[in-house]
Formats: sequence, structure tokens, C-alpha cells
Amino acid sequence: MAHHRLVAVDWGTSSLRGALLDADGRVLDEQAHPRGILNVKPGGFTEVFETLFADWLRPSGTRCLISGMAGSKQGWVEAPYCACPAGLAEVRGKILEIEPGRISIVPGLSDTHDGVPDVMRGEEVQIFGAMALTGLHDGLFVLPGTHNKWARVKNGMVTGFRTFMTGEFFALLSQHSILARTLDASAPLDEAAFLQGVTQSDNGQGLLHNAFGARTLALFDRMPTRELSSYLSGLLIGEELRTQSVHAAVEVVLIGAPALTQRYLLALQASGIQARTLGAEATWAGLHALHSSNHRRP
Amino acid sequence: MAHHRLVAVDWGTSSLRGALLDADGRVLDEQAHPRGILNVKPGGFTEVFETLFADWLRPSGTRCLISGMAGSKQGWVEAPYCACPAGLAEVRGKILEIEPGRISIVPGLSDTHDGVPDVMRGEEVQIFGAMALTGLHDGLFVLPGTHNKWARVKNGMVTGFRTFMTGEFFALLSQHSILARTLDASAPLDEAAFLQGVTQSDNGQGLLHNAFGARTLALFDRMPTRELSSYLSGLLIGEELRTQSVHAAVEVVLIGAPALTQRYLLALQASGIQARTLGAEATWAGLHALHSSNHRRP
Repeated sequence: MAHHRLVAVDWGTSSLRGALLDADGRVLDEQAHPRGILNVKPGGFTEVFETLFADWLRPSGTRCLISGMAGSKQGWVEAPYCACPAGLAEVRGKILEIEPGRISIVPGLSDTHDGVPDVMRGEEVQIFGAMALTGLHDGLFVLPGTHNKWARVKNGMVTGFRTFMTGEFFALLSQHSILARTLDASAPLDEAAFLQGVTQSDNGQGLLHNAFGARTLALFDRMPTRELSSYLSGLLIGEELRTQSVHAAVEVVLIGAPALTQRYLLALQASGIQARTLGAEATWAGLHALHSSNHRRP
Repeated sequence: MAHHRLVAVDWGTSSLRGALLDADGRVLDEQAHPRGILNVKPGGFTEVFETLFADWLRPSGTRCLISGMAGSKQGWVEAPYCACPAGLAEVRGKILEIEPGRISIVPGLSDTHDGVPDVMRGEEVQIFGAMALTGLHDGLFVLPGTHNKWARVKNGMVTGFRTFMTGEFFALLSQHSILARTLDASAPLDEAAFLQGVTQSDNGQGLLHNAFGARTLALFDRMPTRELSSYLSGLLIGEELRTQSVHAAVEVVLIGAPALTQRYLLALQASGIQARTLGAEATWAGLHALHSSNHRRP
């Protein structure tokens, strides 16, 4: 076999996923474990890794490329951030070998706005994967999650990005705030209540005020309890979109879990913006893209 | 003695304060207890009250007026909200007698914006007290706390108000979010870091983005750990002020704990706005005002 396989690993804060890819990037096998870096004791990364991936790496010439928080200070080996603007070549130039010729780790990206730094680890790989999958090399790439990333891409380079704590705010408010008393965070998405929240977020009064409405609407029986969670989600996502002033002329690519990208799509469509959506496949495509041009086929 | 005393009680969610006032509203004695309504078992309000205040109420003709969450559904007796616009007369008209001629409770205020209700309980008394103490009957009355209130007053009437969850957001972010890992919520106020946060809040990117900066500034050693709490506080208070577009021509009255009103004063002054500040005395003055015009001196 002249074409080598790639073990693609996404090692995040709370979970660990791996895929065995053939030389064309096709997924041959996948595995997922609740072994995020917070669940690995210091010095225990090699053992966890070998237990899960040694079999896949056995065939001679197989390599592994890891992205995500495993490259952070609290991870396996710290891979210093690559500063924006950064494309495939810049990120590839900062890939760090953990075990030469066998296991490497992808750096995250950093950016700075008015002296305040911003960072991502793992999302840059999804962005490169999304570019490979969609053929787009210009646009706005949005990655919803606990800490959402909004990245601007031009000529295949990530020119800059910003993080939004939207997912974490939703968890804090729905689980730990006064809203938790009336709100059912596990209720299914109610599209009308969600869009009502999106509209409300644009009233110029800000999130600190509007969030209280999710309390009073319940107190005055103006909204059924099962809809409050969707309303709060709409307030938060609407607030995020409001600050980003997305234009219809820009290609928007949403990358993430379908339950989340669906909400952003709804909110964007309410403003007449269309977007493409991608899921986990973007990670594997991104690691393949970073790997394959490094190891050209014979 | 023709002039009767008033037992003024502020019974909130987490604390209970009382003052014995003479017929002119002067404080003769005060007491405070950690017996907020969340620390009183259902049906236990009368017993807690009598244990603490029966002595003060013994002299014939002495009455008690209670404000705060004791008038909520979860409190002693539910006193339905008085709708804005509301002045002393409107609120007085909805005072509810718990024990006729002896103990009464003040209703809260309600307002509605675009179909979303807003509520306060206790702050309306502080606003009436602040009017009595300052002689102002027009202006913007701001009451920082867990759930801040911004009330507009015209000709002695509260014409409308909005709630901001600024205090609760600060607690959630500094204690339960990823920021808690690097931030020391008990650090003393650092004015420069606080004002840096106020300035940053006005960058058009919104709180969901700017809050993440309190994480990355620490990660990149751009801000000492002891300053992060002040920076976050500035981001939040700045965000709140930004939405309210306070004009220099409006009289602003800040009512609350000095540690909080000091921060709002700093943030307002950074925009060239002056404000007066009042503390707990506003509550007693407000209960006195509600009581005294109801019971004119002979």
C-alpha cells in the first residue's frame, strides 16, 4: 500500500473522538469516549492514547494528527497558538510532533482586538475542513458551542475571529440563575418562542434586561413554561447575531451539532440570511487536509 | 403623645431589616436579621415577625409598614402589584392590611414593555424615600443590586422602569463560569481595571464576546489576576449603562449599598454624568412617607 492511513483525533475538554481515515480522507472507523482532557490525570495522556489508538496506528506508515484542547497548557503537550491571519500552510508550519513520525498535534489560532487576545483550539481544523468540503475560500464561518467562534475567511486564510460565550451563558442562566426556577432547559425547541426571543433581543435594551423577561413572562403566565428555554435561547443567539451584522452578500457556513446549527439557521433566516451547515465531518476533513498536503502521494 | 411611631420593615429575599421611626421619621432603633423570606417556612411569618417586632409595636397606636418580597407569592401575604405610572397615592391605595390597624404591607410596582412585564418589590419604597430626602420629583432613579432597577420619575410619579440582571450575571460569571478559574471575586475594586471594562463594553461586540476577554487577558498575562474581577464588573455595568443612554440633563439618583453605587458613579462620571447617592436611609424615608400622609398629625 502506497497510500497511508491517518488516525484523526479531536481531543477536547470533555470528550475524545477519533476516526481512521483512508488516504482519500474517507472514514473507515470511528470511536468516541468521555475522556476529555479534564478527565485525564496529568502525565496520563500517553497511556489513554495508546490504549485507544495503538491498534489503528499499527500498520507501518500510519500517522496520527490531534486537534483540540489536548494542545493546551492543561493538555498533553502545549502547541503554541498560530497568529491570524493563518491558512493551512501557517498552521501546518506550527504542527508539533509528540512522537516523531507517528503522533503530531495541531496548534490553535490566536487573534487580538484592541489589546484583548482571543483564542481557538480545534475550531481552526473544522474551518479548514469546511473549506475543503464546500469549496468555499471566502466567507463567515460560525461554530456554535459552549464558546462560539465567528471566523472571517479570505482566500483560504482565517483573517480574524471572535469568541462568544453564548452556550455557557445559556447553561449558567438556565441552570444557576433565578430563571432556573421556572425554566425547563430540557424542553424541546419551540420555534415560535425561539424567534420571539430573537426579535426581542433587538430592542436595544441588551441581554441584562431582556433575560429578566424570561422570568416575568412566566410569573405573569404570558408564556408556557415549556417555551421559556427556547425564548431564552433566542434572546442569546439573537444578541450574538445582532453584534455581528451579517450581510446577505457574505457566504455563511455553520459548523457544529445539528441541534445548535439549526437554531442559528432559524435566526439567520429570520433576517433573510441563508447559510450552509456542516457537522462532525468537518473535523475529519480538516485533519485530512492538514495531513495530506504534508504527505503527498507518491 | 399625639405623634405615633412607625415600625418600618424591609423584608427581602435573603434578609430582614427593621427600624423604629418617630413621628418625624427619625430612626430611634434598628435591627437586621438573616431571616429573608427564603429562610422562613410557609406559615411561619407571623411567628418570626412577632418575635422580632412585638416589643416595638406595644405602645398603643404604633403601626408597622412592611415592604419587599414579603408581599410576593412566596412571602407572608401576596400584595398585588400596582401598575405604573404610580406615585405615593397610587401605591398607598393598594397597601394591604395583614392585621387591621397594626401591620400592613406595601405592594410592588409593575410595568410592561412590548408585552413583556417587569416588576419590583421594595425598590418603589426606596424611590419614594429618595424623592423625600432629595426633594427631587423628576429624574432617573437607579437601584443597583442583584436585579437592578432603572426607574423614570416625573412629577413624583414612577412613569416606568426596567430590570437588569447585572448583579446576578456578575455572580454567575465570577463563581460558575470558566472565568471563575482565574478570577478572584473577593479582590478589592481596582478603579483603572473597572474603567477599562466600562470602555471595552462600548466596542459594539456585546457582553457575550467581551466577557471572554476576562479569560484571555489572564491566559496571556495581560492583566493581573487581582484586577479581573473589577474588569468584569466594568464590562457588565458598562453594558447596562450603554443601553440606557443617560443624558447629562437628567438628574440621576443612585440608591443602594455604597460598594455598588460607587461603581455606578465611577462609570457615569467617565461619561461626564453626575449623580447623587443614597443608602439604606431611603427605605425608612419611603415607608415614613407612605405612612405619614395617610395618618396626618392632629
